[in-house]
Amino acid sequence: MSESLQDQIQFLIEIDKLKTIERRTRIIHGDRRENDAEHSWHLAMMALVLQSHANKEVNILKVIKMLLIHDLVEIDAGDTFAYDTTGYTDKFDREIKAAHRLFGMLPKEQAEEMHNLWLEFESKETNEAQFASALDRLQPLIHNYQNEGDTWLKYNVTSDQVINRNREMADASDTLWTYVQQLIQNSIDQGILTKS
Amino acid sequence: MSESLQDQIQFLIEIDKLKTIERRTRIIHGDRRENDAEHSWHLAMMALVLQSHANKEVNILKVIKMLLIHDLVEIDAGDTFAYDTTGYTDKFDREIKAAHRLFGMLPKEQAEEMHNLWLEFESKETNEAQFASALDRLQPLIHNYQNEGDTWLKYNVTSDQVINRNREMADASDTLWTYVQQLIQNSIDQGILTKS
Repeated sequence: MSESLQDQIQFLIEIDKLKTIERRTRIIHGDRRENDAEHSWHLAMMALVLQSHANKEVNILKVIKMLLIHDLVEIDAGDTFAYDTTGYTDKFDREIKAAHRLFGMLPKEQAEEMHNLWLEFESKETNEAQFASALDRLQPLIHNYQNEGDTWLKYNVTSDQVINRNREMADASDTLWTYVQQLIQNSIDQGILTKS
Repeated sequence: MSESLQDQIQFLIEIDKLKTIERRTRIIHGDRRENDAEHSWHLAMMALVLQSHANKEVNILKVIKMLLIHDLVEIDAGDTFAYDTTGYTDKFDREIKAAHRLFGMLPKEQAEEMHNLWLEFESKETNEAQFASALDRLQPLIHNYQNEGDTWLKYNVTSDQVINRNREMADASDTLWTYVQQLIQNSIDQGILTKS
């Protein structure tokens, strides 16, 4: 077996760990928390289905690649809850270390490509990164709405916090941001999100 | 909200069910069975990482799309174990019905594209379908090898059955088929796969 293939297989075995990293969000059809691997799959499907709603032209393959790999660093760094301000102080440092170790398992050229894709996603400057990030924001909103408030109520998250965290979606997609604003208003009306 | 977006969101909520469809295969890093959503994510990552090992040129976006959607029909039809000959008799009929219902939730053009992609995957005739299918075969082999035999021992699967089921991988990738033959031989040597 070539050294490259051996390294690639070892990487693919290592990233199986993403299936064990739990998010705060619950799945919609079942009573358990979602893991990062199934979350990443769901986001890639959202990219396929919702691509026509992007404000600017996006390379959809790049968007999907970003979404498939965007949470790999959590294998070492763990999941940081969206509204956990303490956890966010050293989040990026922990994730940078994780990216070096994980992508570094791959043959050099592939390691660089994936590392750069992840950094591009994190920087949210390109059209692709902005659209991918918008989907990463949208998915837990849909889950919380379908799950009658779930983490909003559990962690006392208010409507202003949700709006502030998700406002940047407007750059990526007017349609999706309009949809999210309606979803937030409906959630307040239904008493599953506290107005503030 | 436009009717299209409403249909797309309903589809994205419905396919969350893929996270509840269990396969026989266990995850590598943890003591539970794998679900179809995380399996589909793992396959998409394998396509990204292993694409250079395809015998023929493949459109990698198409391969990834196929892998993301290939198991959606199991939301209605359930997972059929690879070595379950009884379950296989009506597998395709059940899956055709499921494809009509699920993809039919999407706007017409998108429904057709996804339905056709799924049919192309099932037919295993194009380069993309053959490569995607090879990865779908390879992944549980790696899992079983890492999990000391797992479903091979549990369901009395023999080496000839494994070879026959996976032989078609050779059309998609000589490199991966050579790797699999070594993996099978190692498994026999280690007593985690019965020779027959």
